[in-house]
Amino acid sequence: MSDPRSADPFVETERLLARLRELGAVGRGAGGLTRLAGSDEDRMGRDRLVAWMREAGLEVDVDAVGNIFGTWHPDGAARGAAPVMIGSHIDTVADAGIYDGCYGVLAGLAVVEALRASGSESRHPVTVAAFTNEEGVRFTPDMMGSLVHAGGLPLADALSARDADGRTLGAELDRIGYAGPMAPGTIRPRAYLELHIEQGPILAHEGLRIGVVERLQGISWQRITVSGEANHAGTTPMHLRRDAGHAAARIATFVHDLAHRSAGTTVATVGTMQLEPGVINIIPSRATLTLDLRDPDEARLAAAEAAVAELLKTLAAELAVEIGSERLVRFQPVTFDPALVSAIERAARARGLPSRRMTSGAGHDAQMIARIAPAAMIFVPSRGGISHSPREHTDPDDLSAGMAVLMDVVRELAEERP
Amino acid sequence: MSDPRSADPFVETERLLARLRELGAVGRGAGGLTRLAGSDEDRMGRDRLVAWMREAGLEVDVDAVGNIFGTWHPDGAARGAAPVMIGSHIDTVADAGIYDGCYGVLAGLAVVEALRASGSESRHPVTVAAFTNEEGVRFTPDMMGSLVHAGGLPLADALSARDADGRTLGAELDRIGYAGPMAPGTIRPRAYLELHIEQGPILAHEGLRIGVVERLQGISWQRITVSGEANHAGTTPMHLRRDAGHAAARIATFVHDLAHRSAGTTVATVGTMQLEPGVINIIPSRATLTLDLRDPDEARLAAAEAAVAELLKTLAAELAVEIGSERLVRFQPVTFDPALVSAIERAARARGLPSRRMTSGAGHDAQMIARIAPAAMIFVPSRGGISHSPREHTDPDDLSAGMAVLMDVVRELAEERP
Repeated sequence: MSDPRSADPFVETERLLARLRELGAVGRGAGGLTRLAGSDEDRMGRDRLVAWMREAGLEVDVDAVGNIFGTWHPDGAARGAAPVMIGSHIDTVADAGIYDGCYGVLAGLAVVEALRASGSESRHPVTVAAFTNEEGVRFTPDMMGSLVHAGGLPLADALSARDADGRTLGAELDRIGYAGPMAPGTIRPRAYLELHIEQGPILAHEGLRIGVVERLQGISWQRITVSGEANHAGTTPMHLRRDAGHAAARIATFVHDLAHRSAGTTVATVGTMQLEPGVINIIPSRATLTLDLRDPDEARLAAAEAAVAELLKTLAAELAVEIGSERLVRFQPVTFDPALVSAIERAARARGLPSRRMTSGAGHDAQMIARIAPAAMIFVPSRGGISHSPREHTDPDDLSAGMAVLMDVVRELAEERP
Repeated sequence: MSDPRSADPFVETERLLARLRELGAVGRGAGGLTRLAGSDEDRMGRDRLVAWMREAGLEVDVDAVGNIFGTWHPDGAARGAAPVMIGSHIDTVADAGIYDGCYGVLAGLAVVEALRASGSESRHPVTVAAFTNEEGVRFTPDMMGSLVHAGGLPLADALSARDADGRTLGAELDRIGYAGPMAPGTIRPRAYLELHIEQGPILAHEGLRIGVVERLQGISWQRITVSGEANHAGTTPMHLRRDAGHAAARIATFVHDLAHRSAGTTVATVGTMQLEPGVINIIPSRATLTLDLRDPDEARLAAAEAAVAELLKTLAAELAVEIGSERLVRFQPVTFDPALVSAIERAARARGLPSRRMTSGAGHDAQMIARIAPAAMIFVPSRGGISHSPREHTDPDDLSAGMAVLMDVVRELAEERP
């Protein structure tokens, strides 16, 4: 057995940082860093990643939904054997930070480079994956590339997803040269690891270096539409109103109260709300709001959804409005592979890095790949818990520590006897 | 004394309807009827009104804020004597109905025509007034022309009001040829009457024909801005959030509850609400909402405002957000002239028209003119209480009845010995 501390990737932190900054400059304009899936900026980012993969001696495959796989085939591995996969994404939200997604992909690349340089006696291929459209900003649903890879969404559905301007992901991938020849799902990993910034405040708040992600919250998104009647704000008595905005406000306060009562498990967010006609002295005839509900426990998440559905019925009767709800996204909670989770925890301990087991509040490609392979995630702290913002930041030492833990676990998996 | 039933304006209802429809076709396009103050459509509507006034033999004056006055000088009236004024407005909201404002102005014109045709021995001039920018959709504040006329807003402030595109009312009035030479406030009426559709459901609901408006609600408008912190909807525990949207929803539910508890006097409307960044899975960092509070009693209105101010303080502390409030409009309740109110009530009774005394929930030019002259209003039913909508409708018989009551009261005032 090799010593996991040899060829310490800590020494490669400068290169990782340089690549993060270089990739973080691709697609940076007046509105900040923006590389939406299928855009010209996405193409430029992909080109850069593929060039780095080729420089590192990886064999690059692109599948039909644009997922990029760079594979190292060690001498000791059987051709076509299932690889250890390290994945994440390089698409971004609008006005993004440089770490979300990119850190996991570039750290994966650094780990493979370090393994090769160290003369690791790996017995399994190691694949670095960058999945298409994880963010879901331009095309719905998010985590699309990994979902297609795991067989959870037909390829045709993904390719026919349309952006706000009516362009399809399929046409855009064609246009930017990333509609690849490989069938999605071809590369089935023997294990999947994803290293990611926490995007939340917990590790930083508790002064910890490594998050051992043992599960991922279930996510429920719905769009709620309330129809009432527009009327004059001064002349319509309260009891004769059908105020869609009032109903929307009641829904929002209800879900916040529900989450606050849940003792920390359920979180609820109303991120968007539109009132129509949107005039100061006209009672809103229509309100549209979105609801993001999450819980690590499926039963509790379903109970929260049921409570909301019940409220909508009650409110519709009480306020004489019609209320409709459309499900946008629904992912059940995911429990990661206990053996992989333990391996991550052991690696952190061996490195002397204080860690804790935790639940991911955000969705990640790992939750999709968990459908077809043992999977787990490693988190590093996010300063202020801030993400999806140019203020997103993780200290270089934390980036380095996360990469070290990833390295140790991948080495252990890659060197395992088949 | 002449018999108030002679020269019955009921016979002129067809002409009133024809003019309402003709004026209601001016500015009608793909988006419905829209004659915002100072627009080309407003100019076309004004041109039509001025032509009708001149055809009726009225002397037309336009003041510096664009208010139009058409005056009949009967032979028996001293030159320069204070007129009986019948006023309202002909500007509209976007996608408006044809009755709001226009009914009062055109009925006033019909009344003067009927008085002249009947050979009324009027001892006072009668002036029909159309005030600029009553709706306040394009330029703030609303009821601007009558407010300037009453000395409540300096002319320069009104002319420098800017629309969303940065154009001033002054420049627009110049452009459309309605920046007149007369100083605002020149024509000080001895009495002011305004005939208007109710814009509310009460008369129709109670099967009455005439609303004797004895007072007008106080109006308080404020814009409330909440600043919190944008963060990931999945990874930020509820107790670490600074959710501006949550605070906005709590404010909206509070004011609705407050109004519902008020036993029918206070009404509250949140007509606009914007959340930023407005993304389904991002906690809102900013919320902007407007609050329209009205009450016929100044003490109760002030108490409602104070309760809201208190809530904003409590919420800011409780939810760790900053909350600011900006006063947009504040009008105290107006009590109309008791003698004029009684005259209207008597006239309705004499015509056999069932009526009730009531409070106007909407703002009207009459509330501004009440600062400088005895004033009162006459309401007619609005079908379904609907206004500011193409569905706004009043039955011709009700239009006619309101005009008859107006006629009788104006005749009485115009024929009074000086």
